[in-house]
Amino acid sequence: MPLFDITRYAQAAESIIDAGRFLYGRGWSPATSSNYSARIDAGHIAITVSGRHKGELGAGDVMVVDLSGQAVQSQCRSSAETRLHTVLYELFPDVGAVLHTHSVNATVLSRILPPQQSLQLQGYELQKAFPGHDTHEDTLVVPVFDNTQDIPQLAEQTKQWFRDHPDQPGYLIRGHGLYTWGRTMADCLRHVEAFEFLFECELATMRLRP
Amino acid sequence: MPLFDITRYAQAAESIIDAGRFLYGRGWSPATSSNYSARIDAGHIAITVSGRHKGELGAGDVMVVDLSGQAVQSQCRSSAETRLHTVLYELFPDVGAVLHTHSVNATVLSRILPPQQSLQLQGYELQKAFPGHDTHEDTLVVPVFDNTQDIPQLAEQTKQWFRDHPDQPGYLIRGHGLYTWGRTMADCLRHVEAFEFLFECELATMRLRP
Amino acid sequence: MPLFDITRYAQAAESIIDAGRFLYGRGWSPATSSNYSARIDAGHIAITVSGRHKGELGAGDVMVVDLSGQAVQSQCRSSAETRLHTVLYELFPDVGAVLHTHSVNATVLSRILPPQQSLQLQGYELQKAFPGHDTHEDTLVVPVFDNTQDIPQLAEQTKQWFRDHPDQPGYLIRGHGLYTWGRTMADCLRHVEAFEFLFECELATMRLRP
Amino acid sequence: MPLFDITRYAQAAESIIDAGRFLYGRGWSPATSSNYSARIDAGHIAITVSGRHKGELGAGDVMVVDLSGQAVQSQCRSSAETRLHTVLYELFPDVGAVLHTHSVNATVLSRILPPQQSLQLQGYELQKAFPGHDTHEDTLVVPVFDNTQDIPQLAEQTKQWFRDHPDQPGYLIRGHGLYTWGRTMADCLRHVEAFEFLFECELATMRLRP
Repeated sequence: MPLFDITRYAQAAESIIDAGRFLYGRGWSPATSSNYSARIDAGHIAITVSGRHKGELGAGDVMVVDLSGQAVQSQCRSSAETRLHTVLYELFPDVGAVLHTHSVNATVLSRILPPQQSLQLQGYELQKAFPGHDTHEDTLVVPVFDNTQDIPQLAEQTKQWFRDHPDQPGYLIRGHGLYTWGRTMADCLRHVEAFEFLFECELATMRLRP
Repeated sequence: MPLFDITRYAQAAESIIDAGRFLYGRGWSPATSSNYSARIDAGHIAITVSGRHKGELGAGDVMVVDLSGQAVQSQCRSSAETRLHTVLYELFPDVGAVLHTHSVNATVLSRILPPQQSLQLQGYELQKAFPGHDTHEDTLVVPVFDNTQDIPQLAEQTKQWFRDHPDQPGYLIRGHGLYTWGRTMADCLRHVEAFEFLFECELATMRLRP
Repeated sequence: MPLFDITRYAQAAESIIDAGRFLYGRGWSPATSSNYSARIDAGHIAITVSGRHKGELGAGDVMVVDLSGQAVQSQCRSSAETRLHTVLYELFPDVGAVLHTHSVNATVLSRILPPQQSLQLQGYELQKAFPGHDTHEDTLVVPVFDNTQDIPQLAEQTKQWFRDHPDQPGYLIRGHGLYTWGRTMADCLRHVEAFEFLFECELATMRLRP
Repeated sequence: MPLFDITRYAQAAESIIDAGRFLYGRGWSPATSSNYSARIDAGHIAITVSGRHKGELGAGDVMVVDLSGQAVQSQCRSSAETRLHTVLYELFPDVGAVLHTHSVNATVLSRILPPQQSLQLQGYELQKAFPGHDTHEDTLVVPVFDNTQDIPQLAEQTKQWFRDHPDQPGYLIRGHGLYTWGRTMADCLRHVEAFEFLFECELATMRLRP
C-alpha cells in the first residue's frame, strides 16, 4: 500500500481537532463519547484515537487507519466503531468527512421511536441544508439501527442500507447517537447542526402532541 | 440609478456581520440558514450572500442589491429570499434593518399553530420591547404564512398584510422562521430577542396547559 | 440633602455593570428588560438608566436617584420601576443591592400560577442559599403580584407585604419577572441564581406531574 | 499523623479550582452550592471551603482535612458535607477525586422518583463512560438517599451501600444533587458529564411517556 501524504494527514487531523472543540462545546460529544474522521486519500483516513476527551483533542489524539480499519504507522487504538466510518468512505468516493456525535436529543429520539421505524422529517425549511434536498416538501428518512457491541455486523447493515439510499445523509443508532457525512468537514458539520436542529424540533413537537 | 455611498455600505455590512455572530451564537441561525440585511440608502440594501455560515460572516459574505432585488456591483447571488427583505424597505421608509432567523422555537411554534391562525401574545411585559406597544395589556399579532419555495408570491402576501398592519413588528413562516425589522440594527436585534423570548414562553406554557 | 460620595457611586455603578453582563449572558435580562440598583448611602442609590442593553452597560448607563426616586445630579431618566427598588432600601437598611430580572422561567411560572396564589418552595437543599433559611425543610414563600403599569401602587403593595414578611427574599410580578435583594451585590446575584434554579425545577416538575 | 506533601496539596487544589470553573459554567454548581475534593495522600484530602462561589474558586478557597474530616493546618471551615467525601476515600483506596454537584436535572429527577426507588439506567451507550461497564446492556443503579441535615448519619448510609455495591459509580440525594468519584479528577469529571447526560435523557423520556 502506498504511503499517505503527511500534509494531507496534518490538515485532516486539524479539521478533526477543530470539529471536536465545536461539537463538545455544543454538548454533542460528552464524556469522551463520539468519534470523528476525515479522508486523507483513496486508501487512508484520519480518525480519533479511542477514549479521548473530544473538546481537548491534540496532535496525539488523531491517528491514521486504512479502509479496512487497520492502524497505519501508529501504535494507537482507534475507536471501536472505526468500521462504521470506513464503510462510508468505501461506499461514497466523494465523502471527505464522517462525524459520529452523541447528543441527548439523538439519544432520546432514537430510544422513543418504535422498533423498525425510521425517523421521517417533512415540512422543515432546514431540510435544504442537505445536498439534493431542494424543498421543504421532500421527506428526509433517517433510519434507526439497534445498538450493538458487534460493530462489524452493524457496519454491514449500514453499508447495505446506504447503498440502497445514497441520497439520505445520516442515521441513528438507538440510545447511542448520530452518524452523518459530507464532502468536506464544513459540509459535515452543517449536517450535524441541521440534524440536531431537526431532532430538537421533533422532540419539542412530540411533547406538545403526545 | 445613482451609485451608493461606500462608507454606508461598509457600515451596513459590519452591522450584518456582527449580528450574524450574535444570532448564530444564540442558536437562531444554524446550518447556514437565515439571511440579514441593512439599508444603505433609499434605493440600496446590504444583504447576506446565499448559503454562508452566519456565525463566520466576513467581508466577502455581504453584497448590495437594489429594492427590486437585483445585485449591484457584484457577481454574487443574494439569498433566494431577498424579495422578502426588499418589500419591507419599500413599505416602511424608516426601516433600517431586517433580520430573518431560524430558531427551533419559531419553527416548532409555527408548525403547531392551526392553519390560518396567527400567534396572539398578551399579558407579557416584554411586549413593550416593540415601538408603539406601551403596555402588557396590548395584543401583539404575529401572522403565520405557509412556507413555499415561491418567494415572489410570499413577498406579495407579506407586503399586503403589513400595509394593513403597520404597527405589528414581525411574522413567521411555517416550519421556517421569523422575519422582523427595526429602525436600526440594534432595534432589530432587540426585536429578535423579544420575539424569541415570547416564543419560548408560549411553548413552555403550552407544555403545561396542553 | 447631603451630597453622596463619588467613589461609592463609582463602585456601585461598577457592580451594576458587571451584574448586567452576567445576567444578560444567562438570558435573564433580554431585549433591554430588567433594572438593577446598588446602595450608595442612606439616602442614595445607583440605578440603571431606562431602556439600556443590560449586557452592554457602560459608564453612561447608571445614574443616581434619592430614595423618593428623584434623579440626582443627572438629566437621565431612571427605570419606570425605580420606586420598586427604593421601597426596599427604605424598608431594609441593610439591603445593599436590588436586582430585577426577566427570565422565561420567571415569566411562565408567574403566569401559570392561579391568581392570589404565591409560589411555595419546599424540600430543596438550595433554599439554604437564602439567609435565615437553614434547612430544606423550611418553606420559601414567593408572592406573585399582578402586573400593572401603575408602579407607585405596586410599590406600596410590595412594601406592605415585605414589612410583614421580612424573612422572604423576593417576589414575582406576573408575566414580568423577579425582584430580589441582598446585603451585597454578590449576595443578591446568589439569590437570583438560586431563584432561577428553583423556578426551573418547579417548571420541570410540573411538566412531569401536570 | 505525618505531614502531607505541599506540592501534592497544590496540585489537588488546582484540579479542584479548574473543576469548579467547568462545573459552574455548565450550571451544575449554582449559588455557592456543591463541594469538591481531591486526594493528597492516604490520610489527607483537599476540599472546598464552605460557602464559596464555585466558578470563582481561588487559592484561599481550598483547604486540607484528614479522613475524619478535621481541618489540618487551617482555620477555615470545610463543607458541612465533608464526611460524605471522606467515607468514599476510606472505602476506596484508589479513589482520587470526589465531586458533589447540584444540577436542576439531578434535583428534579431525585424528587420525582418514588421513595425507596433507585434510578436504574439501561440501554444507553454512554453507560460505558463508567469503568467496569462495558456494554449498554448492563444496568447502572443510582441509589437515591433522602436529604437530611444530619450528615454523619447519611455518610454511614452511603458507606454501607457502596461497600455492598462497589461497582456503582455515584448516588443522588433527594432535592440536593449528585455524588460521584473516580481515580483522577479527569475520570471524575467524565462521570459527572455522563450522569448529567443520562439524567437529562431520563427526564426527557419521562416527559414523552408520562
